[in-house]
Amino acid sequence: MSPFTGSAANTENWEHLRVAAEDGVVTVTLDRPAKLNALTFGAYADLRDLLAQLARSGGVRALVLAGEGRGFCSGGDVDEIIGATLALDTAGLLDFNRMTGQVVRAVREAPFPVVAAVHGVAAGAGAVLALAADFRVADPTARFAFLFTRVGLSGGDMGAAYLLPRVVGLGHATRLLMLGEEVGADEAERIGLISQLTQEGGADEAAQQLARRLADGPALAHAQTKALLTAELDMPLAAAVELDAATQALLMNSADYTEFHAAFTEKRPPKWRGR
Amino acid sequence: MSPFTGSAANTENWEHLRVAAEDGVVTVTLDRPAKLNALTFGAYADLRDLLAQLARSGGVRALVLAGEGRGFCSGGDVDEIIGATLALDTAGLLDFNRMTGQVVRAVREAPFPVVAAVHGVAAGAGAVLALAADFRVADPTARFAFLFTRVGLSGGDMGAAYLLPRVVGLGHATRLLMLGEEVGADEAERIGLISQLTQEGGADEAAQQLARRLADGPALAHAQTKALLTAELDMPLAAAVELDAATQALLMNSADYTEFHAAFTEKRPPKWRGR
Amino acid sequence: MSPFTGSAANTENWEHLRVAAEDGVVTVTLDRPAKLNALTFGAYADLRDLLAQLARSGGVRALVLAGEGRGFCSGGDVDEIIGATLALDTAGLLDFNRMTGQVVRAVREAPFPVVAAVHGVAAGAGAVLALAADFRVADPTARFAFLFTRVGLSGGDMGAAYLLPRVVGLGHATRLLMLGEEVGADEAERIGLISQLTQEGGADEAAQQLARRLADGPALAHAQTKALLTAELDMPLAAAVELDAATQALLMNSADYTEFHAAFTEKRPPKWRGR
Repeated sequence: MSPFTGSAANTENWEHLRVAAEDGVVTVTLDRPAKLNALTFGAYADLRDLLAQLARSGGVRALVLAGEGRGFCSGGDVDEIIGATLALDTAGLLDFNRMTGQVVRAVREAPFPVVAAVHGVAAGAGAVLALAADFRVADPTARFAFLFTRVGLSGGDMGAAYLLPRVVGLGHATRLLMLGEEVGADEAERIGLISQLTQEGGADEAAQQLARRLADGPALAHAQTKALLTAELDMPLAAAVELDAATQALLMNSADYTEFHAAFTEKRPPKWRGR
Repeated sequence: MSPFTGSAANTENWEHLRVAAEDGVVTVTLDRPAKLNALTFGAYADLRDLLAQLARSGGVRALVLAGEGRGFCSGGDVDEIIGATLALDTAGLLDFNRMTGQVVRAVREAPFPVVAAVHGVAAGAGAVLALAADFRVADPTARFAFLFTRVGLSGGDMGAAYLLPRVVGLGHATRLLMLGEEVGADEAERIGLISQLTQEGGADEAAQQLARRLADGPALAHAQTKALLTAELDMPLAAAVELDAATQALLMNSADYTEFHAAFTEKRPPKWRGR
Repeated sequence: MSPFTGSAANTENWEHLRVAAEDGVVTVTLDRPAKLNALTFGAYADLRDLLAQLARSGGVRALVLAGEGRGFCSGGDVDEIIGATLALDTAGLLDFNRMTGQVVRAVREAPFPVVAAVHGVAAGAGAVLALAADFRVADPTARFAFLFTRVGLSGGDMGAAYLLPRVVGLGHATRLLMLGEEVGADEAERIGLISQLTQEGGADEAAQQLARRLADGPALAHAQTKALLTAELDMPLAAAVELDAATQALLMNSADYTEFHAAFTEKRPPKWRGR
């Protein structure tokens, strides 16, 4: 338990997600396979709150986000989200859309890497969740569709118009967000949307292996790398170089850096502590 | 006619461009084929003024930018632009270069998607015009050349040093802008500079089909997607997520979003109004 | 000699680098082949100081950065850097890491293009030096490894978390910086990390040819193109367009622009002066 834990109660009882933890790796599974893991108000809220709880818990070193059944996530449920939003007033609409954006910010700002394990459909909010992850481990059945315009909404949803051009370039991002067409695994890999392409059916296991490797390695170094990648998208070069210098000076006092040098000198593998 | 029209007179008489409108799609054709559509002072000014007029007219839902004859556009005319600029004083040089930049800003800030139909040469200012468009529909004869340094000028012309790294990455952009070499259709597609590659001679028709599809679809959603892609290049993540939330809350009150849900429920295709 | 030279003494005696100049092209060779050109405190300091001296000298029109022996640069020396940093106090650690970042800033802000000639390993700080260059001319033996996390440090070192996403996109950059894995020449070319792939053993000569071409061409135009590419990564579109306009207005008064028009009119090749 982190010493920076306040009075806010934790829960282990996530109604809208399946959550499992094992030695620093948390696996969050969207678990509504009959609906292709379509997201509900409760699922968004749980993702937001779970990520906040994990961030302050202090023991998480990597997170896997996966989907049960035939696909990763088909996005917002047409009945439970689109239908319900038609009944919301102006303030309610803003609240809902801010909540979905908070999930993306929580993924990007989480103090540990997030690995999305994608098979089958990753559509709408599901595509953006995968996009917000640090790694997209996908199998050949993976299909990404930022289909917001096809329901009459902006392709810039949950930060997608910020993130996608920075991952695949403005040209591809415009095409994907404006037309909402499906992108298969081959094209997704070619344009840089997939981090690791596995054999069919292999995404979940490969994502677990990657998360395990990240968690068992120099996890503080991984976490800081993520934090700098996120922050430096929004910084000029001179500020980024200064942030890097302060971060490395900090990490040069870390246990893992000392251990690396000792292990190298003793010609043995380092024993990483993630601190 | 938009209710936000003031006293400024419109013109239908564009001397330096061919302009045609049909049911929400405006087609602008560079029409000086004997000179490979080389741009003159008048052509830049007309592009700037036409885009401003279309932006306030309210009825445009997509725009195609095409070139008559053997190529798209060979850039600024060597005699009528380069020769003339040698006679301009300091203030005149700044006025000219601001005007060309205003054309690019007008393309990026237009409240409708712009589709460039590229065949043959797109050189100098012609390459930047295509780059500023939301889609580059090109056939295998398309050749892009940001040839500014080859006339002794900066490769950063009309926003090219801003836009190109965001489309193809800093490495490719440096090579293209500093060396001014021609990039063929194959390489352009590989590095993300082409949105859609057609068969030879097919760029104009494919661009028209894409513009028609954009105009007949949820055009307000398309326009907002473009606006967010443009704006969020210059925003930190937190601000982008807030802009997305406000935009989606707005569009969830739009006619098209309501129509999507009704059509989905009634199992019929939506009738988009673009509002 | 530039008229803007002050009292600071120049040196021709670089102990930690091999430096050669020929008609506007400076070649800097990392020359410690027995250690795969591993960098020492002195090598970083010399790179920083050399680039500053060259920037104010006024006669440099292109720079080649190369490595002697079996590879380009294996990064910070494990004994002389990692070992030594373990003995530094907090202020010393910050000083060291600021110095390495100053090298990257000096490369990006140099008023001439920098061409890295890469063969064999470009690891750690060596990979970032190549990344900071304007061109990476590499042969098939080139291997890039941003291996910082493998020694327990942040992948965001010397501006890498700023530069790499802008060169290859955020997805690839996250993978490369967080995992620290080696990227071979084929993949590096595919994701946009290599500017020009040569045949085996051809990187040094191709880099010299490119630098010669840059130096003998309109070198002021090349320098300004680099300056705008660097600056406009950190600017909104409207400011970038204004900077481009002012820059082109300036260069339209340059000797090379006048010469281009004269040469074009007289149907002869231009004689570039780089001014």
